[in-house]
Amino acid sequence: MKIALDAMGGDFAPEAAVAGAVLAAEQLAGKATIVLIGQEDAVRPFLQQHGAAAASLEFVPASQVIDMGEHPAKAFQQKQDSSIAVGYKMLLAGEVEAFCSAGNTGAMLVGAVFTVKNVPGVMRPAIANFLPKLHGGFGILMDVGANAECKPEMLEQFGELGSLYAQYVLGIAQPKVGLLNIGEEEGKGTPVIHAAHQLLKVNPHIQFVGNIEGRDLFNDKTDVVVCDGFTGNIVLKMAESIYDIMDEKSLHEPFFDMFNYETVGGSPILGINDNAIIGHGRSTPRAISNMLMQGYNMADSGIVDQIKATFKS
Amino acid sequence: MKIALDAMGGDFAPEAAVAGAVLAAEQLAGKATIVLIGQEDAVRPFLQQHGAAAASLEFVPASQVIDMGEHPAKAFQQKQDSSIAVGYKMLLAGEVEAFCSAGNTGAMLVGAVFTVKNVPGVMRPAIANFLPKLHGGFGILMDVGANAECKPEMLEQFGELGSLYAQYVLGIAQPKVGLLNIGEEEGKGTPVIHAAHQLLKVNPHIQFVGNIEGRDLFNDKTDVVVCDGFTGNIVLKMAESIYDIMDEKSLHEPFFDMFNYETVGGSPILGINDNAIIGHGRSTPRAISNMLMQGYNMADSGIVDQIKATFKS
Repeated sequence: MKIALDAMGGDFAPEAAVAGAVLAAEQLAGKATIVLIGQEDAVRPFLQQHGAAAASLEFVPASQVIDMGEHPAKAFQQKQDSSIAVGYKMLLAGEVEAFCSAGNTGAMLVGAVFTVKNVPGVMRPAIANFLPKLHGGFGILMDVGANAECKPEMLEQFGELGSLYAQYVLGIAQPKVGLLNIGEEEGKGTPVIHAAHQLLKVNPHIQFVGNIEGRDLFNDKTDVVVCDGFTGNIVLKMAESIYDIMDEKSLHEPFFDMFNYETVGGSPILGINDNAIIGHGRSTPRAISNMLMQGYNMADSGIVDQIKATFKS
Repeated sequence: MKIALDAMGGDFAPEAAVAGAVLAAEQLAGKATIVLIGQEDAVRPFLQQHGAAAASLEFVPASQVIDMGEHPAKAFQQKQDSSIAVGYKMLLAGEVEAFCSAGNTGAMLVGAVFTVKNVPGVMRPAIANFLPKLHGGFGILMDVGANAECKPEMLEQFGELGSLYAQYVLGIAQPKVGLLNIGEEEGKGTPVIHAAHQLLKVNPHIQFVGNIEGRDLFNDKTDVVVCDGFTGNIVLKMAESIYDIMDEKSLHEPFFDMFNYETVGGSPILGINDNAIIGHGRSTPRAISNMLMQGYNMADSGIVDQIKATFKS
């Protein structure tokens, strides 16, 4: 199996990307090969620094780079030889089984929709992230930013997508799905949330446990938390800032250390016909390596086939 | 000056309410008198327990109680001799200058709108809460739950109301107002957020600093964070749960200890013609006492007159 990495993506690319790829390659030896995509002149020196450790990595040249600040759709369409565009072309062609990038989030989303495309039946793909759980492991929070405003049917689908990921990638037998709201009672929240609640309640593919509140994100009430991309993004960035503040104050504790984005390394785009993962802009080698491991786990689990089968019916 | 307290409000009422009133009465000696409102049979034994320390407290009987689970509007209208209804009647009559309750949040909101009413020009009152700041003190977050869905003009008004509170009650000379969003760029977020951004940008009464993200809640970018009641409620309850988890793990640190709801004790309703504060359901005596101190500070600051003057123009 081959897992592709955008060597040019992230604030510390290509150095951190190459170092992360080397770390992941060691862990995946005999199971998967990492394919680095990027500008040859920029990437080669770092590959040489790692010497024999980088020997198992493959390299595919891409002459262009989409910068962090560029307009996603415009940049993706104009830079067809960018590392992100080349990565998606390889994914579409089946040359790699997952594509990871810590680069321009919007361009990664646009690339997903333009090349590998939505799974038929999925209205809008969403970005998932991970919630540390007090009693160990992670739950799923989605959407965390792809769709600021959502129709009730989209929220219902996020519940299904998250539940499939929890089941097939995280190995949770019967994932509990909750709807993030401002009260536990059915009548709470906005009209969109009321309607989503009714749809989730009767959806036969998931185990819906009802509304949960902001205080329930880390407890055992749910494995999957459904919300629009606006709310999810605020929750995610607030959680990241809590970790950063604790880290700055040298407060370390196993549960709160799971808030460190490096632990999971990236956010999968769910609802597309292939495995794509978006990493944090400031990804370190450890974060990049964990993102690649997640890419391997997604590809190995066959999650996309499960999503296709569910939305076919 | 007199500050009224609903002696029947909160999970540990009336015991915690009486104990909190005694604490506040000591701090406010010579400046304000605390008026307890509640069922005489229930409250008197606790007053007697405190002996001389409770001597300065006034007592006003109210034969009914609105329970935590009751329907707010129905309960408020049917129980006109409830402690919440009696409190608002005294507030309207000018017999007290602030009214505090850790009871039914919805009934407190309904009571505010039905009795003392909105300040003319204010579309919808909102509930404010407090964000601990890394460099000391608190900022304001609003709305945290009165209005799940907001029009752009309501969000603009929350910015004005929060700014006035920050200036006149917290003593921040030129409060910085930010709009909670999923990116700093103007084009980010939902159509409602875009429109609110444009309104806030040209509002002459505030110093608008633009969009802020979930990671900026605790830093110095703003003194006032504007959001709808859905987002604000999730942020508030998530922050409270972070404190609870840290407390359970015996992790204590001055900044994170400010996340303890007891520190500020209550959430003011802003945009009404008087001073009303809602406390946490599980309020302890310390929380009740701090809520009463906040009520005193609000009344003492003349914040309501400032709000009336601003919205008159």
